[in-house]
Amino acid sequence: MDEFALIRRHFAGLSPARADVLLGIGDDCALLQPSPDRQLAVTSDTLISGRHFPEATAPADIGWKALAVNLSDLAAMGAEPRWFTLALSLPVADADWLAGFAAGLRELATASGIALVGGDTTRGPLSITITAMGEVPPGQALRRDGARAGDLVCVTGTLGDAALALKLLDQPGLPPPLRRRLDRPEPRLKAGLALRGLATAALDLSDGLAGDLGHILAASGVGAEIDLRALPASSHFNGLAPAADRTELMLRGGDDYELCVCLPPEALEEAQQRLDVPLTQIGRITAQPGLRSVDVSGSTQPQDACGYRHF
Amino acid sequence: MDEFALIRRHFAGLSPARADVLLGIGDDCALLQPSPDRQLAVTSDTLISGRHFPEATAPADIGWKALAVNLSDLAAMGAEPRWFTLALSLPVADADWLAGFAAGLRELATASGIALVGGDTTRGPLSITITAMGEVPPGQALRRDGARAGDLVCVTGTLGDAALALKLLDQPGLPPPLRRRLDRPEPRLKAGLALRGLATAALDLSDGLAGDLGHILAASGVGAEIDLRALPASSHFNGLAPAADRTELMLRGGDDYELCVCLPPEALEEAQQRLDVPLTQIGRITAQPGLRSVDVSGSTQPQDACGYRHF
Repeated sequence: MDEFALIRRHFAGLSPARADVLLGIGDDCALLQPSPDRQLAVTSDTLISGRHFPEATAPADIGWKALAVNLSDLAAMGAEPRWFTLALSLPVADADWLAGFAAGLRELATASGIALVGGDTTRGPLSITITAMGEVPPGQALRRDGARAGDLVCVTGTLGDAALALKLLDQPGLPPPLRRRLDRPEPRLKAGLALRGLATAALDLSDGLAGDLGHILAASGVGAEIDLRALPASSHFNGLAPAADRTELMLRGGDDYELCVCLPPEALEEAQQRLDVPLTQIGRITAQPGLRSVDVSGSTQPQDACGYRHF
Repeated sequence: MDEFALIRRHFAGLSPARADVLLGIGDDCALLQPSPDRQLAVTSDTLISGRHFPEATAPADIGWKALAVNLSDLAAMGAEPRWFTLALSLPVADADWLAGFAAGLRELATASGIALVGGDTTRGPLSITITAMGEVPPGQALRRDGARAGDLVCVTGTLGDAALALKLLDQPGLPPPLRRRLDRPEPRLKAGLALRGLATAALDLSDGLAGDLGHILAASGVGAEIDLRALPASSHFNGLAPAADRTELMLRGGDDYELCVCLPPEALEEAQQRLDVPLTQIGRITAQPGLRSVDVSGSTQPQDACGYRHF
């Protein structure tokens, strides 16, 4: 089967019809109609087999996750999802694999209202690059550079679940909800939109809290102190995470895809009311640079604000 | 060196500053300001080492070509280049390779006024996916579905040079201008803009004339007859292409990155005057479906309108 037949069969009509897609898959470019008086938010993320997901991951989960990690960036910007392109590199054109991959991709694309508008299919080691586009009203994007001393540092949902699932991957009895946190991250799109006008800075947690928060600190020219006792954990995490690994998993584990948000103390209550997911205060922004943590004993330690190193 | 240092060192400030880039590399998303009353043209293309360029290709040429093939899609749509993202997968973080790659990318980005606004760097087999965005006034995009019986079929520049260079790659004395046609394709951006309002259909030639023209025929519901004697060849091609391979190289060789354009006969002269590159009539659109060629002896043969098969 040739490239064009592949694309047509599995990806044409994959995603919701949008009136702003003037020309979708099948020409040199997609033609899209941006909304008047909006800014365009654009992100690209690549997933490589064995690095960003276990090689044995189900094709539908790979399709979901490839889109989810990009939607998570739109969420962290406070942008509404609009369109995406898919660059798919495959070792073989396996119809079953493609059908599964397209099904997972379709499920999340439909749920979030984003349309597949183009891309490329090549033969090569399994790798997926998605470029996602969203829109945001002028001046309302959630950036990394607005955190101020005195702001609260908060996170949505729970931390460390995906990293724990990866650690326990080959062990029997891994609870499906925990595994799902690794395979099917839920981009916090509604939360991102609800935080517009409240958050001073935000990003999504992909490489681990310490390193990702470090990006906010660097961009905003501030520091932070976080309380390790306040980090939110799921019941599965509490039941299964080895005591010695808990802090490391929550602080440096990747693939959380929760939002890390800074906001003034007086905005916390409204933010919590607006969100469809728990928002937990875990620390404070400080004028003093660097990242520090307060541990169980109440003592303060400096933390290396570095995340997953891709090289 | 970590991913972020890599990106900062080689890609930050790589491309021309544009006032419509509100936030570039370094946040969850880039923030861009689309022009009022314009449509957005978006394309994604992947280059994989050993498939889309010879493994020994100079890093600067790889950087150039990765952007050029995407700009060629914008050109074929009649869109003005605006912004692009870069997803780069590298086996090792080699500073010399990155410097060369960035230099080639910068050269073409600067020449075409397109800004690098984001992307992703991962460790993996060498692969580059660029997503390029451009803008076009409403209703003026050059699509594939507007060709009508009686239209002329034309191509810019010359055909078969890149395919010949690839064929002769390991032979001594390959003329640098011919090699350059393989390594440094020139996207026909000015030609694409100049053809707005004149062409009824257009696309760029990446997989070979026969297959690519086949896409116009399928999308427009027409056929075509092309005259093999009229296919434009460079002097290097004429001097070096084996007689037995000439037609195959020009008809089915990939990587031309010329535009194939359909237009009414009365528009040809103005199109030729407007373009900064030769535009040669090679055939006609017919109501009769299928692709046919007229050979040196004047006899007509059916042609398989299929290009390079990626699987």
